[in-house]
Amino acid sequence: MNEAKHSRLELTVDLNADLGEGFGVYELGADRELLSVVTSANIACGFHAGDPTTVRTAVEQALAAGTAVGAHPGLPDRLGFGRRVMELTEDETYDLVLYQVSVLYGVTRAYGGVLKHVKPHGALYNMAAKQAPLAAAIARAVAKVDASLVLVGLAGSEILVAAERYGLASRSEVFADRRYHSDGSLVSRSDPRALIEDAEESVAQAIRMTQDGLVRALDGIDVPVRAETICIHGDGQHAVNFANRVRLALTAAGIVVTA
Amino acid sequence: MNEAKHSRLELTVDLNADLGEGFGVYELGADRELLSVVTSANIACGFHAGDPTTVRTAVEQALAAGTAVGAHPGLPDRLGFGRRVMELTEDETYDLVLYQVSVLYGVTRAYGGVLKHVKPHGALYNMAAKQAPLAAAIARAVAKVDASLVLVGLAGSEILVAAERYGLASRSEVFADRRYHSDGSLVSRSDPRALIEDAEESVAQAIRMTQDGLVRALDGIDVPVRAETICIHGDGQHAVNFANRVRLALTAAGIVVTA
Amino acid sequence: MNEAKHSRLELTVDLNADLGEGFGVYELGADRELLSVVTSANIACGFHAGDPTTVRTAVEQALAAGTAVGAHPGLPDRLGFGRRVMELTEDETYDLVLYQVSVLYGVTRAYGGVLKHVKPHGALYNMAAKQAPLAAAIARAVAKVDASLVLVGLAGSEILVAAERYGLASRSEVFADRRYHSDGSLVSRSDPRALIEDAEESVAQAIRMTQDGLVRALDGIDVPVRAETICIHGDGQHAVNFANRVRLALTAAGIVVTA
Amino acid sequence: MNEAKHSRLELTVDLNADLGEGFGVYELGADRELLSVVTSANIACGFHAGDPTTVRTAVEQALAAGTAVGAHPGLPDRLGFGRRVMELTEDETYDLVLYQVSVLYGVTRAYGGVLKHVKPHGALYNMAAKQAPLAAAIARAVAKVDASLVLVGLAGSEILVAAERYGLASRSEVFADRRYHSDGSLVSRSDPRALIEDAEESVAQAIRMTQDGLVRALDGIDVPVRAETICIHGDGQHAVNFANRVRLALTAAGIVVTA
Repeated sequence: MNEAKHSRLELTVDLNADLGEGFGVYELGADRELLSVVTSANIACGFHAGDPTTVRTAVEQALAAGTAVGAHPGLPDRLGFGRRVMELTEDETYDLVLYQVSVLYGVTRAYGGVLKHVKPHGALYNMAAKQAPLAAAIARAVAKVDASLVLVGLAGSEILVAAERYGLASRSEVFADRRYHSDGSLVSRSDPRALIEDAEESVAQAIRMTQDGLVRALDGIDVPVRAETICIHGDGQHAVNFANRVRLALTAAGIVVTA
Repeated sequence: MNEAKHSRLELTVDLNADLGEGFGVYELGADRELLSVVTSANIACGFHAGDPTTVRTAVEQALAAGTAVGAHPGLPDRLGFGRRVMELTEDETYDLVLYQVSVLYGVTRAYGGVLKHVKPHGALYNMAAKQAPLAAAIARAVAKVDASLVLVGLAGSEILVAAERYGLASRSEVFADRRYHSDGSLVSRSDPRALIEDAEESVAQAIRMTQDGLVRALDGIDVPVRAETICIHGDGQHAVNFANRVRLALTAAGIVVTA
Repeated sequence: MNEAKHSRLELTVDLNADLGEGFGVYELGADRELLSVVTSANIACGFHAGDPTTVRTAVEQALAAGTAVGAHPGLPDRLGFGRRVMELTEDETYDLVLYQVSVLYGVTRAYGGVLKHVKPHGALYNMAAKQAPLAAAIARAVAKVDASLVLVGLAGSEILVAAERYGLASRSEVFADRRYHSDGSLVSRSDPRALIEDAEESVAQAIRMTQDGLVRALDGIDVPVRAETICIHGDGQHAVNFANRVRLALTAAGIVVTA
Repeated sequence: MNEAKHSRLELTVDLNADLGEGFGVYELGADRELLSVVTSANIACGFHAGDPTTVRTAVEQALAAGTAVGAHPGLPDRLGFGRRVMELTEDETYDLVLYQVSVLYGVTRAYGGVLKHVKPHGALYNMAAKQAPLAAAIARAVAKVDASLVLVGLAGSEILVAAERYGLASRSEVFADRRYHSDGSLVSRSDPRALIEDAEESVAQAIRMTQDGLVRALDGIDVPVRAETICIHGDGQHAVNFANRVRLALTAAGIVVTA
């Protein structure tokens, strides 16, 4: 009885990282090490990054590590790593996501696992956060592949609204090492202030977002955010060390880290 | 004379065509028209040809037409349309096929259908016909995605051997409009005699292969072939007219055309 | 003396078309036929369309036809044929144009010709028409390759301003079969009114733009345009017939068609 | 003993490395550091590796370092880094090389430099070393772009024969850290013995090839090789340290390192 009661009061949060973002001879990120820290893996599908071998490898590794497997669809812009805004129609967006989620759906199933979630990548993520029609196209494609998939999107964004509209469960995402505007949007990577370089500050931001549901925006205002999953960047330096620090700090604060 | 007996004596054959081989603004083939004639559609997966929109469109059209949906994986050589030999390792081949079949598996399922077969494309098809390790890598990948898939390969080739080895059903393919060597292999497209340009001759070859299990090779020798499915090329001129002629001739000869 | 006087009074205009826009097995446009009509060829450089073989073929054909050879650089979006807006930095744009113009510069020179002009393609053209920094990046790259190149851009647009700033000659372009807004910009292809389907109307628009320097905008207002070159679309239906009609009508109106 | 006499007796050798082999966010090799050691840079042209930004950056850096700039054309197989054998026709090969050399020709010239040499990459290099028709196609394309270019190829290979046939100067290349067969060909990278991991042994091989024109093959036989340029791999670990050791050892042996 105590346990059940305790469990209901417990704060939980998911830690997610982008994996499988290499291509051919090019490696990126520390997939294996990150898999021992995060609870959800967003696996690149071969458009902004990734190829048939990285997809299969990342799925196998994530399943072996017991990490939840997700698809990480991106724009068809390998040269720009899916970070450049492209104007896509809703139909193009739908097809793009349908294809990429299908890849991960099939490969994960082939290896005896179940695809759990979808998190759009880069510019697609940011565009869909603000543009309801794009968010709807993404949610529609995800629901078409499997209505039990969880759609991950920026806290407070159109992606979460679209998930609900198409009957999908959603997960509200926050960033430990990114700075926020007072409308809850992320400061663009083209802005030098986009990234929090200080690990201490990042960890503190992660804890505060999870415990209090607040983040301090660039202009000093506290913005409410719903932290159901925290993004750990895998392609930066020290990503693994940082991921470990965040996880330890969350645990120390009594927060349960789980997918 | 009773129906069951008759049914056992009936000759049946499948007609298949490659669909969804456009890319972006580029169109190729007469997909819609061919779908009214063939019984199996091999849909390009986005490597040698195709893109997210062509895949989704072809799957939808094939399902609407009641045509069996198959995956048509090819080499990662869009510029060469997957027709140029590339030396791949077995692991590269496995991953390549796993990825491409997964796309079609997921998209077909999303549209309420079931992926039925896999037929490798172009140089991958020809290489695997002769190289047992490549054929095995393909069969292994197909079986990994779904052990109930049918693997289509050149009559008498290593692909059919590999299918059996990995517990997959297979379908032995013949070509109405391609010429054969006396070892049962196809005359390469780089040889001017590769294609039978005369429709009459093609139709006759199709009927003879299906009825008698024989094809006349370049050197005049009759080669035994097992005709379980006949390939109709969709990217040539007059493809649809030709497909219709073959189908009518088969029916007129009392052969049942069915997937 | 007569001749010189006459020459000063003569109206001249260039006719240009986009060529070499196929890719691998995919063909697009009627390059050979168009080359007998237009005076300038804009050759795709391998990014939005084209490949090493189409580039070499188009250069050879254009030189053989005596048509002026130009580079037609586009966005790195083959799937979208370079027609989708992408957010590029100025540096990315500069590098993209530098690379593509270099290809055409080198290949044309290899075949004994001289590259004459550069005309950006699709979304790059439209973005640079309005965004001065992108236009500047393009002009800077063109000037870097060869300061004697002519930069072609939409009449009244930022591209022509940038050309002047970087010391390049420019050519002001008008469209026979596109409709205009009253600010001189083109109606977007996503608008159903973008294209003039009626050949008569297109020819009349071409003549009026060249003779009177005016075009009737969607809202009925006459907009001044400087018609130094008229774009003939090569990828539409009836492109060659239309090009011939425009050329005949111009000649009949006493306008000299020349590069 | 007088300088002119000494100079005639001097042994010279070129040190070359492959540069500009990153792509988008992916970095590869230590370009800047290698440029301070080698005398010739082979710059990837955007097919097996590289993009518009890496090409421009590498050209600028090489020119600034006073290193000779060369083009490093490869197969259209970015996923396989141009290391997988592809069957190309002679015409396809010609066009592929013409395009890629033109890029480097134009960009180098744009930055006030002169393109000096061409060295095929990976599988294209190895195929052309043995297949006279491919070597001829390459030499023909290089000569078409600029007849004063130097064609670099494996010592004793068909590439050097083709260079002579098309009136090109050539440079005979040896590898410090690769093992040889007794016919003078390189042991394939798929063979675990392909690479000499021991730096000492590599340096010794480099010196012996340059001084004595000999290399010990796998089977223990001494094979004559003409060492006009030594390849330094830039994408391995410790590449820069190793390059420095080779250069120091050559200098210590009285060999002049120069392009």
